[in-house]
Amino acid sequence: MADAPYIAGVDIGGTKVACVLADEEGNILARRWQLTRAQEGWQTVVSQLFEMTEQVLEGVPRQQVRGIGISCGGPLDSQQGIVYSPPNLPGWDAVPIKRIFEERFGLPVRLENDANATALAEHCFGAGRGTRNMVFMTWGTGIGGGLILDGRLYRGTNDLAGEIGHTTVLLDGPLCGCGKRGCLEALASGPAIARRARELAEASPESGVWQRTSPDAVTAQHVVESAMEGDTFARFVLAEAATYMGIGIANLAQILNPERVVLGTIAVKAGELVLEPLRRALEVHAWSRVRQVLEVVPAQLGDRAQDLAGVCLWLAD
Amino acid sequence: MADAPYIAGVDIGGTKVACVLADEEGNILARRWQLTRAQEGWQTVVSQLFEMTEQVLEGVPRQQVRGIGISCGGPLDSQQGIVYSPPNLPGWDAVPIKRIFEERFGLPVRLENDANATALAEHCFGAGRGTRNMVFMTWGTGIGGGLILDGRLYRGTNDLAGEIGHTTVLLDGPLCGCGKRGCLEALASGPAIARRARELAEASPESGVWQRTSPDAVTAQHVVESAMEGDTFARFVLAEAATYMGIGIANLAQILNPERVVLGTIAVKAGELVLEPLRRALEVHAWSRVRQVLEVVPAQLGDRAQDLAGVCLWLAD
Repeated sequence: MADAPYIAGVDIGGTKVACVLADEEGNILARRWQLTRAQEGWQTVVSQLFEMTEQVLEGVPRQQVRGIGISCGGPLDSQQGIVYSPPNLPGWDAVPIKRIFEERFGLPVRLENDANATALAEHCFGAGRGTRNMVFMTWGTGIGGGLILDGRLYRGTNDLAGEIGHTTVLLDGPLCGCGKRGCLEALASGPAIARRARELAEASPESGVWQRTSPDAVTAQHVVESAMEGDTFARFVLAEAATYMGIGIANLAQILNPERVVLGTIAVKAGELVLEPLRRALEVHAWSRVRQVLEVVPAQLGDRAQDLAGVCLWLAD
Repeated sequence: MADAPYIAGVDIGGTKVACVLADEEGNILARRWQLTRAQEGWQTVVSQLFEMTEQVLEGVPRQQVRGIGISCGGPLDSQQGIVYSPPNLPGWDAVPIKRIFEERFGLPVRLENDANATALAEHCFGAGRGTRNMVFMTWGTGIGGGLILDGRLYRGTNDLAGEIGHTTVLLDGPLCGCGKRGCLEALASGPAIARRARELAEASPESGVWQRTSPDAVTAQHVVESAMEGDTFARFVLAEAATYMGIGIANLAQILNPERVVLGTIAVKAGELVLEPLRRALEVHAWSRVRQVLEVVPAQLGDRAQDLAGVCLWLAD
């Protein structure tokens, strides 16, 4: 029922799956999680989800539950509630997850891709509160976005809006995992930061990064940690990635004129080490009248974002 | 009144000003236009507009008129109805055009920047009919955009959404009129096409372009005309500009996932000479799942767009 006080949220990730019961203020009343048994196929994962959903709903009368919100990696069809082959969920090919859950629990179900659902969570409860036009950007292994425009989630024509990580920022730049060249993700994501450190390893033998790890094993995490201790090389590599991020955000801002851009993991961990060079790039590449109304800030919800992502599907629209 | 059958549309341009009376099917029932006496200051231009608006409203009972819609170059504040210093209207500095018209005619007035208003016109009556997510792009002296998302005009936080012409497409590229470098407008607009022809003039003495005009006087129009007659050099210059346009549209499409992009003047005049290289660039720079749902087409309304732009402000939302 539309005004029922409780909402179930389901988070389907390649590493972990989780279910929560929450109220409309975002308080988590019950929570279950498991490592995703992704290799055993979609039926196994669905049975994990069923088990946990039953546990969080235990003892709650159905008419007290507004609905179930599912957050999952794309590609997917939010309208039909069908999940197509996410790269981290092998064997998922057109799984009608919405219908499957509706039949099992007798509750209405909404499905949304994780970037969009997390954007809603930051908008409802995190760094995007009170804004009308907000962009949430994941900044970790990948770079993706969720767009809240005129106060509502904008999904695009086939659920692909917000793929800012795959806009071209550097013509003929490095090859991206998506097959294109010069994508923002190929220049500024965690793996891009690691790749850049590795490329420049021989030129920076004295860097603290190489006291932590070898060029073969370096990750963005090592670079961020060294940068936080003042390592010049690590700061250079981070600033370069952040500069590209600033250019990508400038292009986004010239198109969408948002009032806030909320940035995920790397901005949360590295803070001003990336935000400062990012803002400098924004000054060069975005108009001052666009910047006047724009704040670029780190996300606030941390791990709570995943819990609240599905829940928020029943709080918006 | 909300269901009154007639609407007055006002178009304020740097070269001409025009007023029309139309019905809600977009039929123009009366039309007046004059050359803009821009150099005489805003009061003179407003008196031109008053005169023409009175003429098109003559004999029409006020209660038969839904409102007046004004389309004008930005920057402006659509909410407050105030026009700030458009580059082509010297001396316009915070002119409260909405209030001025409301007081004079006793009718409700809406103000919108010309790219947005033309987007609405193409959406209601032109190449964007029937779409939910559409981008209209001017492609002439400047490159600007109007965004129709989920069926409604999206203006951004301070009326600057859609400034796609000033996204960075080529890092450290040519200087743009806006002060930035490598903007799409500096690479693909009419003046950019002319500049490129001029730059390459010495290398292309045999081109038909130089039978029409001199390098000093060349315009995009000369290049398009020569290209249509088969001139290789002119086709090269057009294709280069169109390629940048395709990259800019690819970035836009990765962010907005629209179903149609409607292109103005240069696409209308040059047709496949620009659309073909543009689509090739799109294939390289936008995902196939994004392209699957996307059509890129020339605008359909031609000169009628300006007439209908203001009128459409009373047909949407």
